[in-house]
Amino acid sequence: MATVSIIGTGNMGQAIASVVAKGGNGVQLIGEADKDKQVTGEIVVLAVPYPAVPQIIAERGEQLAGKIVVDITNPLNFETFDSLTVPADSSAAAEIAAALPESRVLKAFNTTFAGTLASGEVGPLGTTVLVAGDDADAKATLAGVVSAGGLKVIDAGALKRAREMEALGFLQISLAANEKISWTGGFGVAA
Amino acid sequence: MATVSIIGTGNMGQAIASVVAKGGNGVQLIGEADKDKQVTGEIVVLAVPYPAVPQIIAERGEQLAGKIVVDITNPLNFETFDSLTVPADSSAAAEIAAALPESRVLKAFNTTFAGTLASGEVGPLGTTVLVAGDDADAKATLAGVVSAGGLKVIDAGALKRAREMEALGFLQISLAANEKISWTGGFGVAA
Repeated sequence: MATVSIIGTGNMGQAIASVVAKGGNGVQLIGEADKDKQVTGEIVVLAVPYPAVPQIIAERGEQLAGKIVVDITNPLNFETFDSLTVPADSSAAAEIAAALPESRVLKAFNTTFAGTLASGEVGPLGTTVLVAGDDADAKATLAGVVSAGGLKVIDAGALKRAREMEALGFLQISLAANEKISWTGGFGVAA
Repeated sequence: MATVSIIGTGNMGQAIASVVAKGGNGVQLIGEADKDKQVTGEIVVLAVPYPAVPQIIAERGEQLAGKIVVDITNPLNFETFDSLTVPADSSAAAEIAAALPESRVLKAFNTTFAGTLASGEVGPLGTTVLVAGDDADAKATLAGVVSAGGLKVIDAGALKRAREMEALGFLQISLAANEKISWTGGFGVAA
């Protein structure tokens, strides 16, 4: 059994916690009031908006050494909904990996709305979680937890593919914000 | 009735031609041997690989003035399958729009594999064509042709969203090339 520490108790943090628990793995939920709580999981999910990540890294960087750190963010400019806030040739995941050189950073969950994690469905399709990262063992560990929780998993390649996953996440949010799709639908994956 | 000129007779050109014809609109297919044939459609689809686009613009740029020009390319580095060949803060569509200032350039069909255009299905979902562009009338004209042909259409926003659509197309091709999905499946859209 793995334990997954989830930093952030919003919609996404709760939805990921429910997937982890469904698979029989352990969950540690860490909210804003839990600043003194040490992370105990070998997998740590940063389930916070991208602007909140630097403070977590500043406060918990040493605790995250040696752990699998999962970046789920979509670094949108939420004032304009018209661009990302990371450099065009980079990604939130790449920035986080650079700030946490002792951690094994993965990108995941940024292309699945919270509603589709909870329901296990994107319309008629089963929900698929894309996972990108440079450490094959770390990806396999996270994939095991997600598939135990009833969702499909696809290895999307190296961590540099996070750039395309963030573009996909951005496009999906943009379509939902413009009411072209609903927040319970979006891009499903047909094998 | 609209007429759609399709430059390029490969898988994608043929699949788009079949969608157009299915909707009762006119098709002009232009192959490599048809250099002397003038384009007659008010919509012109550049159904060629991105590296072949500059020569078409050089040869036919004047003919394309005033027309709706549809860029369907995914400008991958096909040697490495690991990056796009356009600048990170740009897109193939933006480059083509800059080269054709007298045309109304749209991005479309780059996120739908040829097989899904022909079948009308991405797994259990109906095939959805995303269309981005800065000219609302041009988008509506193309949307009419595509929906008459039996496919769904979503307005993905301004032409700058082509950047995210090309990232999505790249990711989808990368997943298919790595046998994570099939060339008849991919990212479907659930409303």
